[in-house]
Amino acid sequence: MRIVDVIARKRDGLELSAEQIRAVVDPGVPDYQTAAFLMAVVLRGLSDRETADLLDAMVDSGERIDLSPVGRPVADKHSTGGVGDKTTLVVAPLVAAAGTPVAKLSGRGLGHTGGTLDKLESIPGFRVDLSIPELVAQVAAHGIAVAAQTADIVPADKRLYALRDVTATVPSVPLIATSIMSKKIAAGASRLVLDVKVGEGAFMEDLESARTLSRAMMRLGGAAGLPTTCMLSSMDEPLGCAVGNALEVAEAVATLEGRGPADFTELCLVAAGLMLGDRAPAEEALRSGRALNAYREWVAAQGGDPDAELPHAPVMAEVRADRSGTVEQCSSRRIADAATRLGAGRARKDDAVDHAVGIVVHKKRSDPVAAGDVLATVHTRGPVDEDAVRASFVLTDAAVERAPVVLEVLTA
Amino acid sequence: MRIVDVIARKRDGLELSAEQIRAVVDPGVPDYQTAAFLMAVVLRGLSDRETADLLDAMVDSGERIDLSPVGRPVADKHSTGGVGDKTTLVVAPLVAAAGTPVAKLSGRGLGHTGGTLDKLESIPGFRVDLSIPELVAQVAAHGIAVAAQTADIVPADKRLYALRDVTATVPSVPLIATSIMSKKIAAGASRLVLDVKVGEGAFMEDLESARTLSRAMMRLGGAAGLPTTCMLSSMDEPLGCAVGNALEVAEAVATLEGRGPADFTELCLVAAGLMLGDRAPAEEALRSGRALNAYREWVAAQGGDPDAELPHAPVMAEVRADRSGTVEQCSSRRIADAATRLGAGRARKDDAVDHAVGIVVHKKRSDPVAAGDVLATVHTRGPVDEDAVRASFVLTDAAVERAPVVLEVLTA
Repeated sequence: MRIVDVIARKRDGLELSAEQIRAVVDPGVPDYQTAAFLMAVVLRGLSDRETADLLDAMVDSGERIDLSPVGRPVADKHSTGGVGDKTTLVVAPLVAAAGTPVAKLSGRGLGHTGGTLDKLESIPGFRVDLSIPELVAQVAAHGIAVAAQTADIVPADKRLYALRDVTATVPSVPLIATSIMSKKIAAGASRLVLDVKVGEGAFMEDLESARTLSRAMMRLGGAAGLPTTCMLSSMDEPLGCAVGNALEVAEAVATLEGRGPADFTELCLVAAGLMLGDRAPAEEALRSGRALNAYREWVAAQGGDPDAELPHAPVMAEVRADRSGTVEQCSSRRIADAATRLGAGRARKDDAVDHAVGIVVHKKRSDPVAAGDVLATVHTRGPVDEDAVRASFVLTDAAVERAPVVLEVLTA
Repeated sequence: MRIVDVIARKRDGLELSAEQIRAVVDPGVPDYQTAAFLMAVVLRGLSDRETADLLDAMVDSGERIDLSPVGRPVADKHSTGGVGDKTTLVVAPLVAAAGTPVAKLSGRGLGHTGGTLDKLESIPGFRVDLSIPELVAQVAAHGIAVAAQTADIVPADKRLYALRDVTATVPSVPLIATSIMSKKIAAGASRLVLDVKVGEGAFMEDLESARTLSRAMMRLGGAAGLPTTCMLSSMDEPLGCAVGNALEVAEAVATLEGRGPADFTELCLVAAGLMLGDRAPAEEALRSGRALNAYREWVAAQGGDPDAELPHAPVMAEVRADRSGTVEQCSSRRIADAATRLGAGRARKDDAVDHAVGIVVHKKRSDPVAAGDVLATVHTRGPVDEDAVRASFVLTDAAVERAPVVLEVLTA
């Protein structure tokens, strides 16, 4: 079988066999052939059967974690990535405190703001580089482990994603679905909740695309023995109020203490309820403080000090409204861009992240604003482009209704 | 400008600026990005404006030959490549003998049978590696020069073509048109005839695609100051009878001596007539023997001995019909495959070509055949797969009309 013939078949919109798909994603294939194949996939698509075969080939490219030593079903969650998304830090403790262990591998964030690993690393002492045996042992002993994706888990995805990132072949439902699900399947959990973000700060800009992606991932999970539920949540505005690594850790702790933003608290309870199969025990874990204790136990188990002071930036600048009105939108994209410019996120893969900097927004959709009110606080080490932050807030004189954060839940 | 954003625009079917096109074909761009861009072009197309800008960027990537020292307008011809296509060896002498100098740069043949250079190199002593000054001086002194494409002429095409060949991005009208026309424009002639092959042995399998490609090339030539005429000719059967390098040289000489196959002689006269603007002087050059003299002068000027014996294969095997009937088709593709297996063509770029081997077909469309008649003679160094050669001939009991070799001529 010649790789060029496989690429030509997909270019012409024909279906590929499992063997052909396995051949074309083999690491021995030169990057330029893989890139041409990926573009053909973006423009021609993959059938459900082809997508499942691609998933298999990707999972088989590396190791699969065996979580059976934990002795109980282990839950996992994944978010397609959003602005101010510190959900794992709250949901894992809620679920673990309610009796279901949680194991999660996470990647580094690119663009926008930091990823879950960056947030956790802003806790002094926190180690994310657990070996697979350490991860399994920690889940068994403490009920939660969150670690960095290792090179042994789906190496094919690492290579494909790096290529997609630079060849404009990211936006493809089968490629996104297999990238996410291959890692989740290899990570070994026995149930999965996916938080699919929708809106201007997300991969999927509209509800219908998010549903399509969700259904593709649920099909793949179901076929691979990983029952998967999807929640679709809005990313038009930042999740909660804090955007920036240490700021988000502080907001997560506040949420576990019952003092979190309403939208973020609600999203965490929905996610935890889906992971547990019932929302009541998650609410009880929050109310009782057992979730907070689970968080502290987890952080300590991974070498972090839950009582240590988090890094903070030397300058806190208030950005005030220059008119009155009602907030129609606090743009997640603009806030993310501003936070990235402060150093909270990465413009390039190798950029260092500044854990201390970020933005806390004080006004969101439907909030009334008077001229001079503080819209946001910028935590920074240098000068602040106040206008850019102010421009994130769209004010109107019309009435604005609240919008729900969780848009819908899809179950198989 | 980020290259990934340019690729994304084309992926989404948007038009690119001249600057964006120039950036994405820059040799500094990694192959994987170029490959993704090429696949996006194959599937999304390029507008006429984008195609013209791509042409400019390609021509500007290298040198342009200045033929003004020749002192007269110089003609060029190009064929999109066919089976048994030894046209240049006859047309260049016809045109030169009628008073118009001919300069041609040629590539190596890939697949099928050898290219023009391989055919010329089967003449003992013939040198195809002329420098640009040598080429110009030879055209001025002898009226004809045919040389190997040098690395200085459109290096961008060399790189793009090598990538297209392995990434299934060859079949694209704008990419084929710019690849051909960039080299023709850089080669410096002042008029051009393109022989666009149509049929199973050709790039373009149907007349409508061939017309589309022809019009694209004529537009590019016209805009770049190189008036271009296209003839569309049939490639369902081999051109003439000989397929294989030395065998084709012998057939070209026979044609210049007035003993050539009718289809091939006709095609050469049409092409020469278009290059001259009038067919009569080409017929006169053939009839008078002046074209043969021009051929001999040309061969000698490039170091070849026009009287030397051509290489010949030790074995000549006759393939006979196993039934009677009328030839419906002598399949150019099957004959080419059989000739390539003998060693007449290249399966890979670096393969050596055996100048001596090949196939001479004796029956073509509409010829009556009796069982036991010789269909073809195979010139080889080893055993012959007679069945494969025999299977190239489709026999029928129905009546079969002759088909013209030149299908139509398109002028601007």
